[in-house]
Amino acid sequence: MKKVVTMGEIMLRLSAPGQQKIQQTQAFDVVYGGGEANVAIGLSQLGLKTSFVSKLPDHALGYSANQQLNRYGVDTEQMLFGGERIGIYYLEKGYSIRPSKVIYDRSGSSFATSKTDEYDLEAAFQDADWFHISGITPALNEEIFQLTKQSLAVAKRMGLTTSCDLNYRSSLWTFENARKKMTELMQDVDVCIGVEPLQLLDAEGNEIKDRLPAKPGPDDYKEIMQEMHRKFALKYIAMTFRNQLSVNHHQLKALLSDGSGFYQSPETDVEIVDRVGTGDAFSTGLVYSLVNGYEPQRAVDFATACFALKHTIEGDAGLMSLAEVEQYMENRNSFSIRR
Amino acid sequence: MKKVVTMGEIMLRLSAPGQQKIQQTQAFDVVYGGGEANVAIGLSQLGLKTSFVSKLPDHALGYSANQQLNRYGVDTEQMLFGGERIGIYYLEKGYSIRPSKVIYDRSGSSFATSKTDEYDLEAAFQDADWFHISGITPALNEEIFQLTKQSLAVAKRMGLTTSCDLNYRSSLWTFENARKKMTELMQDVDVCIGVEPLQLLDAEGNEIKDRLPAKPGPDDYKEIMQEMHRKFALKYIAMTFRNQLSVNHHQLKALLSDGSGFYQSPETDVEIVDRVGTGDAFSTGLVYSLVNGYEPQRAVDFATACFALKHTIEGDAGLMSLAEVEQYMENRNSFSIRR
Amino acid sequence: MKKVVTMGEIMLRLSAPGQQKIQQTQAFDVVYGGGEANVAIGLSQLGLKTSFVSKLPDHALGYSANQQLNRYGVDTEQMLFGGERIGIYYLEKGYSIRPSKVIYDRSGSSFATSKTDEYDLEAAFQDADWFHISGITPALNEEIFQLTKQSLAVAKRMGLTTSCDLNYRSSLWTFENARKKMTELMQDVDVCIGVEPLQLLDAEGNEIKDRLPAKPGPDDYKEIMQEMHRKFALKYIAMTFRNQLSVNHHQLKALLSDGSGFYQSPETDVEIVDRVGTGDAFSTGLVYSLVNGYEPQRAVDFATACFALKHTIEGDAGLMSLAEVEQYMENRNSFSIRR
Amino acid sequence: MKKVVTMGEIMLRLSAPGQQKIQQTQAFDVVYGGGEANVAIGLSQLGLKTSFVSKLPDHALGYSANQQLNRYGVDTEQMLFGGERIGIYYLEKGYSIRPSKVIYDRSGSSFATSKTDEYDLEAAFQDADWFHISGITPALNEEIFQLTKQSLAVAKRMGLTTSCDLNYRSSLWTFENARKKMTELMQDVDVCIGVEPLQLLDAEGNEIKDRLPAKPGPDDYKEIMQEMHRKFALKYIAMTFRNQLSVNHHQLKALLSDGSGFYQSPETDVEIVDRVGTGDAFSTGLVYSLVNGYEPQRAVDFATACFALKHTIEGDAGLMSLAEVEQYMENRNSFSIRR
Amino acid sequence: MKKVVTMGEIMLRLSAPGQQKIQQTQAFDVVYGGGEANVAIGLSQLGLKTSFVSKLPDHALGYSANQQLNRYGVDTEQMLFGGERIGIYYLEKGYSIRPSKVIYDRSGSSFATSKTDEYDLEAAFQDADWFHISGITPALNEEIFQLTKQSLAVAKRMGLTTSCDLNYRSSLWTFENARKKMTELMQDVDVCIGVEPLQLLDAEGNEIKDRLPAKPGPDDYKEIMQEMHRKFALKYIAMTFRNQLSVNHHQLKALLSDGSGFYQSPETDVEIVDRVGTGDAFSTGLVYSLVNGYEPQRAVDFATACFALKHTIEGDAGLMSLAEVEQYMENRNSFSIRR
Amino acid sequence: MKKVVTMGEIMLRLSAPGQQKIQQTQAFDVVYGGGEANVAIGLSQLGLKTSFVSKLPDHALGYSANQQLNRYGVDTEQMLFGGERIGIYYLEKGYSIRPSKVIYDRSGSSFATSKTDEYDLEAAFQDADWFHISGITPALNEEIFQLTKQSLAVAKRMGLTTSCDLNYRSSLWTFENARKKMTELMQDVDVCIGVEPLQLLDAEGNEIKDRLPAKPGPDDYKEIMQEMHRKFALKYIAMTFRNQLSVNHHQLKALLSDGSGFYQSPETDVEIVDRVGTGDAFSTGLVYSLVNGYEPQRAVDFATACFALKHTIEGDAGLMSLAEVEQYMENRNSFSIRR
Repeated sequence: MKKVVTMGEIMLRLSAPGQQKIQQTQAFDVVYGGGEANVAIGLSQLGLKTSFVSKLPDHALGYSANQQLNRYGVDTEQMLFGGERIGIYYLEKGYSIRPSKVIYDRSGSSFATSKTDEYDLEAAFQDADWFHISGITPALNEEIFQLTKQSLAVAKRMGLTTSCDLNYRSSLWTFENARKKMTELMQDVDVCIGVEPLQLLDAEGNEIKDRLPAKPGPDDYKEIMQEMHRKFALKYIAMTFRNQLSVNHHQLKALLSDGSGFYQSPETDVEIVDRVGTGDAFSTGLVYSLVNGYEPQRAVDFATACFALKHTIEGDAGLMSLAEVEQYMENRNSFSIRR
Repeated sequence: MKKVVTMGEIMLRLSAPGQQKIQQTQAFDVVYGGGEANVAIGLSQLGLKTSFVSKLPDHALGYSANQQLNRYGVDTEQMLFGGERIGIYYLEKGYSIRPSKVIYDRSGSSFATSKTDEYDLEAAFQDADWFHISGITPALNEEIFQLTKQSLAVAKRMGLTTSCDLNYRSSLWTFENARKKMTELMQDVDVCIGVEPLQLLDAEGNEIKDRLPAKPGPDDYKEIMQEMHRKFALKYIAMTFRNQLSVNHHQLKALLSDGSGFYQSPETDVEIVDRVGTGDAFSTGLVYSLVNGYEPQRAVDFATACFALKHTIEGDAGLMSLAEVEQYMENRNSFSIRR
Repeated sequence: MKKVVTMGEIMLRLSAPGQQKIQQTQAFDVVYGGGEANVAIGLSQLGLKTSFVSKLPDHALGYSANQQLNRYGVDTEQMLFGGERIGIYYLEKGYSIRPSKVIYDRSGSSFATSKTDEYDLEAAFQDADWFHISGITPALNEEIFQLTKQSLAVAKRMGLTTSCDLNYRSSLWTFENARKKMTELMQDVDVCIGVEPLQLLDAEGNEIKDRLPAKPGPDDYKEIMQEMHRKFALKYIAMTFRNQLSVNHHQLKALLSDGSGFYQSPETDVEIVDRVGTGDAFSTGLVYSLVNGYEPQRAVDFATACFALKHTIEGDAGLMSLAEVEQYMENRNSFSIRR
Repeated sequence: MKKVVTMGEIMLRLSAPGQQKIQQTQAFDVVYGGGEANVAIGLSQLGLKTSFVSKLPDHALGYSANQQLNRYGVDTEQMLFGGERIGIYYLEKGYSIRPSKVIYDRSGSSFATSKTDEYDLEAAFQDADWFHISGITPALNEEIFQLTKQSLAVAKRMGLTTSCDLNYRSSLWTFENARKKMTELMQDVDVCIGVEPLQLLDAEGNEIKDRLPAKPGPDDYKEIMQEMHRKFALKYIAMTFRNQLSVNHHQLKALLSDGSGFYQSPETDVEIVDRVGTGDAFSTGLVYSLVNGYEPQRAVDFATACFALKHTIEGDAGLMSLAEVEQYMENRNSFSIRR
Repeated sequence: MKKVVTMGEIMLRLSAPGQQKIQQTQAFDVVYGGGEANVAIGLSQLGLKTSFVSKLPDHALGYSANQQLNRYGVDTEQMLFGGERIGIYYLEKGYSIRPSKVIYDRSGSSFATSKTDEYDLEAAFQDADWFHISGITPALNEEIFQLTKQSLAVAKRMGLTTSCDLNYRSSLWTFENARKKMTELMQDVDVCIGVEPLQLLDAEGNEIKDRLPAKPGPDDYKEIMQEMHRKFALKYIAMTFRNQLSVNHHQLKALLSDGSGFYQSPETDVEIVDRVGTGDAFSTGLVYSLVNGYEPQRAVDFATACFALKHTIEGDAGLMSLAEVEQYMENRNSFSIRR
Repeated sequence: MKKVVTMGEIMLRLSAPGQQKIQQTQAFDVVYGGGEANVAIGLSQLGLKTSFVSKLPDHALGYSANQQLNRYGVDTEQMLFGGERIGIYYLEKGYSIRPSKVIYDRSGSSFATSKTDEYDLEAAFQDADWFHISGITPALNEEIFQLTKQSLAVAKRMGLTTSCDLNYRSSLWTFENARKKMTELMQDVDVCIGVEPLQLLDAEGNEIKDRLPAKPGPDDYKEIMQEMHRKFALKYIAMTFRNQLSVNHHQLKALLSDGSGFYQSPETDVEIVDRVGTGDAFSTGLVYSLVNGYEPQRAVDFATACFALKHTIEGDAGLMSLAEVEQYMENRNSFSIRR
């Protein structure tokens, strides 16, 4: 069985139940999540061996986050315990025309204040086939950026395939800083998910993205992806598209490039139970497909199926089994009760 | 007031709250349900006298199931207590593109292991006008098939009208076995709901259903119904049609034949709270209509209204009052708050 | 900061959780609400000073209602305590094709049995800019009608602007009685929301409303509004339009007249979390706009935004902040998570 | 099987969950209860046939109360539907040194405003062996007092044994009025539970109760009971004693007189889940014992066991089975898990 | 009506429901609390005017904390909004032999990082009679210590009486540092609650507390209090005593000195619903008593009643009304339901 | 780190929330538990490596049980998936004088119907130090008895220490059968917990247990333990004592013999949150102590601390950390909040 390692922050998520506003609630629902942790759980549910590398406080909140990873099959042998606190995000789920809101309270977390030399990266990558990271992790601070960079380098050196979900968050760093840093990380990345905030210029040295139309579709991104292939040694570039009809009704599709061809998944309508972690579910499906050697078309279809199904599942983590994803792909229009 | 008797299994239903997956839940919502029990409760809520015949374990779970029947007005004078266990089904409600799932754990239940001679059928049918059963009951095992057969025979002998919802479940028996057994039961049935898995041949001895188009509609079933009228002494044959736009958005209609004419209800769009027991709600509405002597068009309209409304009600049982069904039929497009 | 005073009844609302029927529930969700109280809370959430005048029983239920007002920033210095009971309404939320139901149990409440001379109206209107009331309050009984009438008179005398949401409830009084009384109140009203049950005749003395088409739209109401301007000294007349596609999917718009022009808001589609109090949210948005001197078009747009957003919020009260309403107005088609 | 009829009011009980104060709660737990309804449910759970006579509003609240009676096996064939409202009581459960609180909102209920001639008392008592009532019912108003009196008279005429739990409530009537009316009712009562507010004079015409010591025990009440036997044609008089160590820790015992001897049950310590309805559970146990011909000592022991066990059961109703009461009586000090 | 101002931090409290461990929970119950905020709410519930001075983040969590204060009647006109985050504490409630646990996550909160010159202390103390603070506030950091010191100075200058609950927390500062700083603050304090960590030497310059016996009782603290009166210009010194029989069963009493005499309250046994905030309830009762001029014995009795009653109330805040405290004091051994 | 393997059944536990009766509940709380699974989880929480061997159905219920084991750190590499169903037990928690009830529905479970040759026992015991089993497992049926016997033999052959908690359950087998089979298993057991149902005769061949007094204490069991040491090659024999003051208040102690001496732990009073799994917590503490080489007195004290603490924790599993057990042992009478 293939083994995938991910590294990043896992946070306490506190969400107001149902469609309540934070001001109304007398209780918060509790799960633990974060981009790379979600991918680790998702891959474990699909059947791979996974390991998650991070640092958590040495008290009940840290243990609870760790237990959620273990519960869903993620190895936490390389988890560090210590530091001051667990990062938190508060979620108020929107509905119809009222958008969801997230309040972050993550600064000073055990992971964000951890040091590169606390981690035994060689032990972490032992026997592993793949290393996945997102752009949220290097955005935390310079030390964690260096940890990310070094992790990618060690992973490449030890023969792992590497993937990165660019996942730009304006609340964490400026676009310019993100662009510089993420571009720097690309040298050790094999599979890139998303295209921003990389600096991508056309033959004349102009920003390609400045030429994107108002509502760009898959075709509009092909030139950008080609430039990415030219500029970096990427094996695959993938990207999702989301048309939001309302807060709880989206249309989804995705595009995958292997440098020689473009592969697009059919559009899927979803009504939404929980939108958080859906991008991570796409990454999950893509890594699963590629580590298992799927053909590009099947890979983007599988990743899009994971992406779409996650919208119907409560919490951060994509708790779809392989059987559920495959049944969905084979019976896209069969909605009967499975008895 | 007319009195309807039904017989079958009533199970403990354990459902994960909201749209949670079973793996996520820390609690199961509890109701008790089963095809014939749902019909008994539904008819009682509409205002008829009803009685439910079954066997339940002689402990708190059995009493709880029995109390749910009593709560909604069903007489359980003929309920037997004993045996090993209550049958269970676990329900994970799907949403959007993720189908609902049911896990059955019903073998060895008090009803399934009961014997025909434990029941006092003559007492059960005393003063009753109608006896209803579904195809799930005879599917349980040979003994219960014989109980079903004998019940229909006694009911007919005592002058009751009988109805059967064919309700084929591939998890309980093979199609061929079901076909043979259900065909055998038809001799004592007056009103048949559904057309499968009966063996229905055309004049040349070919299976009529093999000629159905890919997505058969009401018109496509008319020949099959005519053959059923030819073959069995049925007064009425009814059938529902369901077009599933997504897991929680269906379009519904129904067809009723009285041997001389076909009556079709208008299509109804429903968004779904709980899909379980909706077929039973159709049977409820049909039995209610026919025992009260409604004209066929009104009968199929009333049954379809029950069918549609049940999709908006949590639990197995169709808890619609007569006033609610009639208000719906008269004001199909009035969705204002009733103050 | 502007200050708005409202007066009326605040009731205990008991609603079956989720989509449960009242017969199914083992618990009622609790909030406290009523037309004018909802407007006071809504205006307070938007940032105005507000005060609510009423009478509540002198026990834990009365204190709880009062505390909900305080929680959301409404001053209750003029609240009276005493009398027998708090009015109640029970809410069963419908879904899809099953309408919501309300059972009222409000007679004999502390407010309904209070006397005009218990209230210190001059103190209540001290430093206030606006007084708002609805047609539910004068409908309670003759004494409360007189209280309403006198309140409007005192408010006008003290220089406040006055608004009235006609809000005809057939369960409280007959149409004819309502017409007579509400017409009488109009003499001291500056802003009227709704057009029924006022008596409005055309030049020939015929009821204008008798000429309305089957499904009247904004244009159809212009003549009525013009007649209202002719008959009463109204500064503004506003009215909402609701097209109900199903119990939980409505299309909304509104019309505002300032006597010289008509201003219409664009149609908005909403899926519904809680429909109760949405008319009050429209009044909230309108009063907010007008007390702050918004132009008519912006006023009707702002009021419609409040109206629409309230449909997505649980409970009676419109808990939208000014930022939320403004963000919605500026980004009507942006449904992304706000991080 | 013996059949017992009870008559009275059944109310909606709204209780703050756990030990929450009413001001804190966002939900009320819902059950339906009232003295005589509790006795009917309790007797039904013990295995008797029971019937409850009352009037409920003809809407979902009334149906829900009726369904709770049916759920626990009480016949409601004689239930009337109509009138304005269901009576309510709010319960805030205390703990330790904080007493529980009840807020009543019962005036104007369907039962309280019902008329004697609405009831078919002869039909209600058909085939019945026993009629039970409490002192709360005649306290409601003069009309209901007359209904109570007439019911007792009809019951006696039709050969039923009658019992009355005096249950004085100072919130409903004055002591003097209660004394006069309850004394008048005694003429048709066979079994009296409690001794106040009857007028009981010694040989010298002095109030016997004025001679009671500060903390009267069973022995102190014997003279009073003897005077009751002298004054009324009572077969049995019973009375409970409660020593409250804290809000949730009581010591219980009871005294029964049959006119010739006194029978006392041993003291029982209980920690309390729900104290409401415990007196009704004593009545339940006493009526069960006497209608089944138990010896006086066994009767008072059985009634005290019901009384004590109810303290451990949530809600108004005493949901103990006969087996549970008997096991408790036989194994008073065995607290192991029953597997 | 007297007005009391308090200043300090109000935190988000996240507690595992019931007796769950943090590792088990899928939800946290939410209230907002902190020593001085609890006192403000408590005094408001008793009937005083109160105002709370603090700083909260300018988002939904900050608004929610503010709304809780408003809900229970506390004026927040002087609340500042801004800064990074709300402080948090996690609560795992113990039971029997398992102690409760608190995990703090409060560093970097909006209040802790606020500056003295952001506050308008003169406006805050306008029209106020009393200023209360606890030793937790000055422990946060040097800036907040200075804010505390300056607040006490301004309060004294403006003629308010001042009180301080010493409330030493070893997790916030060292004993030595606390001793030095709290001793410094004493110069502007009139009423001191607790005796540690002040430096108190006897005539020979030896630490008086070193002479305390192993289990010191009220008498053992008299010398310390006398020394406090000698050293500082205190009008009153109060102190609580708690004998913990188990996690949920404590015995409570208190001692008050006015410099000339000692006043002790009787011991009270309590079983515990929520132990957090009980010390704050004592302060509440003491401030209420003294601001209203109660005699010392009544003051310590009233404060102990508040202290004891809070143990039975869920959440941080002491939600007892004046009537409840007085009824408890008058009927210490009456545990009947209040109807 | 030491590694402990346990084998047995893990069941779905469905418990009515709080103190509700099963007949009252609309939801069941869900955990997964069973004697040996509880010990594995408990040891894992204390810090050991653990592995649990069993068989679960290959569907969501089986996965959920497996995930609970993983969540709390138990390795399930040797878990088999297949068979028909998961065993269930229903729990109704008693209170005060009302005993708890358990209804079992475990026959036909995947584990009970598994075959010895499905298990790879040598792989299961690889690198392990200890193997623990209870008397419930061999009681299931002859095949599972043989599996148990063979497991003990293989474990001994591979050098593991073995322990067995006799745990007689009359609902599973007769005392005589249990005695014969458990006596047979003793040949490969090193540590025996409990003394029944072994056959233990004195020198004259008489049953020693027939000489036990009515309420036997630790001293009374010494002769029995000596006879066990004589008859079997046991290193340790341990036994718990429980004095039940009420359903929720017990007194606990334990006795340990190492063949040369007896070691008794002090009596501990506990109030109870959840009594299920407390014996398993004792086994947990004992195995932990002995595998880590604790002295006998410390071992029995540590095991009794685990035993006692588990009574305060909801669910089957003993979720105490090593720090919590050690803190309890060092501060038996310190019940303060741990901050």
